[in-house]
This record gives sequence, structure tokens and C-alpha cells, in this order.
Amino acid sequence: MLQFELLKTDGLARRGRLTLNHGVVQTPIFMPVGTYGTVKGVLPRSLHDMGAQIILGNTFHLWMRPGLDVMQSFGGLHGFERWDKPILTDSGGFQVWSLGEMRKISEEGVKFASPVNGDRLFLTPEVSMQIQTLLNSDIVMQFDECTPYETKGHLTTEKEARFSMELSRRWAKRCIAEFERLQNPNALFGIVQGGMFEHLREESLQALVEMDLPGYAIGGVSVGEPKEDMLRIMAHTPHRLPAHKPRYLMGVGTPEDLVAGVACGVDMFDCVMPTRNARNGHLFTRFGDLKIRNARHKSDHRPIDETCSCYACTGDASNGGFSRAYLHHLDRCGEMLGPMLATIHNLHYYLNLMREVREALDADRFEEFRRQFATDRARGV
Amino acid sequence: MLQFELLKTDGLARRGRLTLNHGVVQTPIFMPVGTYGTVKGVLPRSLHDMGAQIILGNTFHLWMRPGLDVMQSFGGLHGFERWDKPILTDSGGFQVWSLGEMRKISEEGVKFASPVNGDRLFLTPEVSMQIQTLLNSDIVMQFDECTPYETKGHLTTEKEARFSMELSRRWAKRCIAEFERLQNPNALFGIVQGGMFEHLREESLQALVEMDLPGYAIGGVSVGEPKEDMLRIMAHTPHRLPAHKPRYLMGVGTPEDLVAGVACGVDMFDCVMPTRNARNGHLFTRFGDLKIRNARHKSDHRPIDETCSCYACTGDASNGGFSRAYLHHLDRCGEMLGPMLATIHNLHYYLNLMREVREALDADRFEEFRRQFATDRARGV
Ligand SMILES: [Zn+2]
Ligand SMILES: [Zn+2]
Repeated sequence: MLQFELLKTDGLARRGRLTLNHGVVQTPIFMPVGTYGTVKGVLPRSLHDMGAQIILGNTFHLWMRPGLDVMQSFGGLHGFERWDKPILTDSGGFQVWSLGEMRKISEEGVKFASPVNGDRLFLTPEVSMQIQTLLNSDIVMQFDECTPYETKGHLTTEKEARFSMELSRRWAKRCIAEFERLQNPNALFGIVQGGMFEHLREESLQALVEMDLPGYAIGGVSVGEPKEDMLRIMAHTPHRLPAHKPRYLMGVGTPEDLVAGVACGVDMFDCVMPTRNARNGHLFTRFGDLKIRNARHKSDHRPIDETCSCYACTGDASNGGFSRAYLHHLDRCGEMLGPMLATIHNLHYYLNLMREVREALDADRFEEFRRQFATDRARGV
Repeated sequence: MLQFELLKTDGLARRGRLTLNHGVVQTPIFMPVGTYGTVKGVLPRSLHDMGAQIILGNTFHLWMRPGLDVMQSFGGLHGFERWDKPILTDSGGFQVWSLGEMRKISEEGVKFASPVNGDRLFLTPEVSMQIQTLLNSDIVMQFDECTPYETKGHLTTEKEARFSMELSRRWAKRCIAEFERLQNPNALFGIVQGGMFEHLREESLQALVEMDLPGYAIGGVSVGEPKEDMLRIMAHTPHRLPAHKPRYLMGVGTPEDLVAGVACGVDMFDCVMPTRNARNGHLFTRFGDLKIRNARHKSDHRPIDETCSCYACTGDASNGGFSRAYLHHLDRCGEMLGPMLATIHNLHYYLNLMREVREALDADRFEEFRRQFATDRARGV
């Protein structure tokens, strides 16, 4: 099931409430990525503490490990990873596409060799629906071909992008049929493709809207294209989708991208940046980004971000927050606590950013918020 | 300051209360090891949750990184690592001894090259006291020479062990003088050495007792000697130490070692086993040890230990504990959450074991506890 209430709009920006089988999600929202059934480097308890409302799982990875027999024995991903709030799973399409030479795409689906044990496997729209039904994710993504921006230096042509988009469109229909046959109680999202071509995006969008799906995603961005192309598609597509259905921009992005995306009418975001960058000592703060590895932090007693209320920045009752000097030291010593605290902070930053966006929308001051956000981020940390 | 109240005895086993500058420690106690100012793989918050009363820091490591200037700017280790309960620091002696060819021992102290930047450094009893005073640890260990069990296949002779023990004895006096000169407000422990020779241990012990220190450690065990030699020294030395002062057996050991150590009159233990083994997928449980990497756990829905109340085994309000299947999966995928949960469990197991020991002593049923402990551990998990 999926209910989406549009609570408020401000220009193209939207404030909404999404009700799914495992709970309610306030939008706009950022969704932490939990590829293998774990958001890397963070306890589920910490995700709860920082107000995560919905997390992602990757169908392809979970299919490979632990495998479907194990997932089935747990009744799906929620029981396996011990997360009782909503989960969104991708279709596996992006990952098989990433296998490059190791996969072969046909009308029927994608043949590939398992990178774990070499087994010959075949991922089709039907198989993707079957796996996602078994995972029992609250939001199921259609199986699509993620149109590449370029292939070995060759930019995808309009003809290639059209062929790819039309394939994804046909796959969407097969996904719907299989999703219904399986009586999946969750919600299936369609994915708009069309590469960097607005008219193809529009064709894709129209066809998907006619299929009357409960939500829509914009795919095929964050695939290596220049930033301006991403922003062009982000400005083009979201607001053309049905107003009363949630809109999900896949794989985006920086804090700036998220705020700009909301202004373009996006409701949902996911990205590995906060977690991956945390593990490399790249921290996001209200006042710009911070590389904890930099020697200038060696003796700095300040927390990462003095305005942040995360555990890394504020500690808890008995103790204060951790200093940049301490985090610098942990990074230098290769101590696990470094990425652990950095991940808590970065995810908290992203989740809190979206909370502030929602509050600004609630208070009819989103434009003011955007200006302050830009000023703050430019200040330097 | 240090106050030690002996609350109860049962044979040689003791139940005590140790009051230090940063708080009260109920003994017998296990102390998690936080070499670089972090107990590896665990949030300080989790240490609080699992009831850690006192943790260790390593003088040598902290001297190298982050260095004394940074530590001083934080007023010591508590402020730097954000831990407000007691801390014990070692003297650095064990680590310089481990440098092998890179160090040169004389009556004055140990000359060595910094493994971090190659600087020529000189660690003496006085320098060790100065660093530990700066760290402001609640318990300061004397600088000693950790008598090796063997050196390149050559077993330490009685003559060598005597020379080493006498050197440590002379260094103890210099430590006391420097500790007093520095007006260190914490507590200095002496370390009994003497290798595998009971009569040398007795000589060392007598000399240290005459120095009237507030607490005593048994060093030079867990240095590669056969288990029976460790047990022989453990049976020999602790109960000969003054009854009204705390006794610390350094670097020991397995759960069985801890329970046997209590029966021999030991009050305090530290060991890297629970944290190091956790990172290798070796889990301690009431019913024996468990290698999570083993394929037999692939589909096992049970928690690590059904009688354990740690976060890994029980989760929290909104969700239950994590299964062996999930932990097996995390290990297989190299996910950080694997060692994170394993560390929480192993440390909780060790801390809870000592809590049960204390409760058994309080209830005058320590012998009964020991029998049940042995039966349970032999059961298999
Ligand atoms: Zn923070
Ligand atoms: Zn446990």
C-alpha cells in the first residue's frame, strides 16, 4: 500500500506525507543506502536516533549474498536486518548494467555471471519483481535499463537513448503484470529514462503516467554526466510528473543538489555520498565540507559542526561531543571509531538538512531557507 | 587517590570496591583496552550501556599519536577521548620492549626510534611518570621491563630473569620519586616481575610491598609462555600480595582464565581478546565459543547467545536482536557492522561474566558459580 498526501507546495517544492506498509515518511526525505542489508558503518539503533525514516536495500547484492533462501526464511529484508521502518529496494538493473562485459542485455532481460560464484543468472522484469516481493520492501522499483551517459568515451546518442528508454518502458509493463500476479502488497514505482534528452524523458514520463503507478522515479542521472546535465534533467522532469504522487530522484547527490532538487519538485533522494565520504574522512557541515585528514585539525577542540546535534558532535548525557582533533587522530591511526563517528555525523547532517527543508516548507519560508543555506555553506568551516 | 574496600572474600577470591578520582569500580572487574584512546570498534556510548567501569589507554601509543602537545591541550586522556569514568594507563614498557632490535635498554631507561617518524626517543621511569601524569589516568603503572618468556627460541634463564626483575625494582623506586615530585593526584601501581620463577616473584613482591604502593600488578604473563606456566604464576603470586590493596593481572585472558584468576585472588583484568577476536569473527558465549565465519551459521535465526542481554543479541525497543545468519552475512560481505556488533557482544560477555562473578561472591556461591560456568562453557553453542 501507498498513500501520498501533498501537505503544502511552494513554487515547485512540495511538503508531503507518504504512508507505506511499515510506516509513515515525511517528505522531502533523504534515504540512507543499505546495500547489503546494512547502512555501512552505523548501528540500526543510531539510524533510529538520527531520525532515519526509510532506508534502501539493493536487490542485486542481496540476491548474491546472503541469497534468496536466507532472505525468505526471514520473511524478507526487515526481519533479516532488523529494521522495522520502511525500506525501498532497487530493481537490480543498475548493478547488472555495471557488470560491463560480464552481462548480455536482450529484450527478455539480462544474462550475467554471478560475481560471487560465477553461476549463470538471468535477471528479467519478472525475476526482479519476484525477488523484491520476497524481500517485502515497501517500495519496489521497476526493472529498467539505466541508460549510460557514455560507454568507453562514446556519448550515448539520441537513437541509443530512445532504444534504451523504450526497452525500459516495455519492461515497466511486464513489471506491473508480474507485481500484480504476485499480489505484492507494497508499492511499485516506475522509472523515467531517456538519457540526457528532454523529449525522450517526456515520452517516457507520459507512457509511465498512463500506467498509473503509485510513484515515479527519475533514473539515469548520477551516471557520470556533467553536473549541468544532471541539473538540466532535474529541472525538466520532476515537476512534469503527477502532482499527487511521490517523486524520487535516484542517486542524487550533494547537499546543494538535494536543496535544488526539492526546489524542482523532488520528494525523495538517495545517495551513497554521506556514508562513503565519511569513510574517507570527508565531512559535510552547515558551513561547508571538511577533510578531517587535513593537518590543520590536529589540535582543534571544536566539534565537526557546532550547530549539529548528532552523537559525534554533542556526545550524550555523561560526556560532550568529540573534537576534530580526536577525529583527526582516529583517522590517522586507522581506528574504526573514526568512520563510525563520521558516518553518524554525515547521515545526521543529510537527514537534518531535509528536516530543516520540511520545516521551512511548513513555515512558508523555503526561499529564505535556500538563501541562508547557500550563505552558510559558502562561509567555510 | 585510591581507596580499596574489601567487601567479602571466599577462599582466595575477593569482592571489592575501588574508588578512584573519576569514579567507583566494583571488583573483580574486566577492563576493555583502548590503546589509541578508543576501545576498537565500539562507541563510548556503547561502553557505558554495557556497564564498562574502567578502560585502559596505552602510554606509548598515545605518546606517538596524537602526541603530548595535543593530549596536554585536552587536559589529559579523559577529555580527549570523551570518557568520564576511570582510566588505567600502562607504562609504555611493554611496547618499547616489543620494538625488538629498534630499542636499547640500559640502567637509565630505553632508547628507541619512533616507529611513527623515526625520532630518537628515550623512555625512562621519570618520562613514563611525566607522560602518565599528563594523561591524568586514574591508575598509573610503574615503568618496568617486561621479562620475556623467550627470546628467539632461547628461554629466559633464572639469571636473566633476576637481572630484569631487579632492574624493574630499581625503576619502581625512581617511579615513586618522580610520581611524588610531580604531585600526581592519582594512584601508582607496582608490577611484580620475576619471569617463570616463583622465588624471584616472591623477592619482587616483597620489595614492592615494602614500597607501600596503593595497588599491585602481576606482569610478565601472557607473553607467549605455555598456559600451564601462566596458571602456575597466577596461582602463586596474587594471594601473596597485601589483602587490603587491589591486584591486577596484566593481559589475561580467556573467560576461563578470568574465573580462575578470581579464584586465585585477582581483582582486575585486561585483555585485547574480546575486541581483537570480535574483529576476526570469534565470539565468546556462555555455552562456548563460536566462529561466525563458519558456514553452519548461514541460516541460523538464533542470536549469538540466547542468554545475553547485549544490543547485538537483543536489539532494542523497536527491534529484536541480530541473528547468527545476519552476522555471518555481514562477515562474508566485509561489512563494518559485523565487527561492530561482535565487539559489543564480546565486551558485554566479558563485563557480564565479571558481573556474575561479583553477584556470586555477594551471594556466597562462588564455587557453585564456577561449576556452573564450566558446565555451561562445555555445553557447546
Ligand atoms: Zn554532527
Ligand atoms: Zn550478546
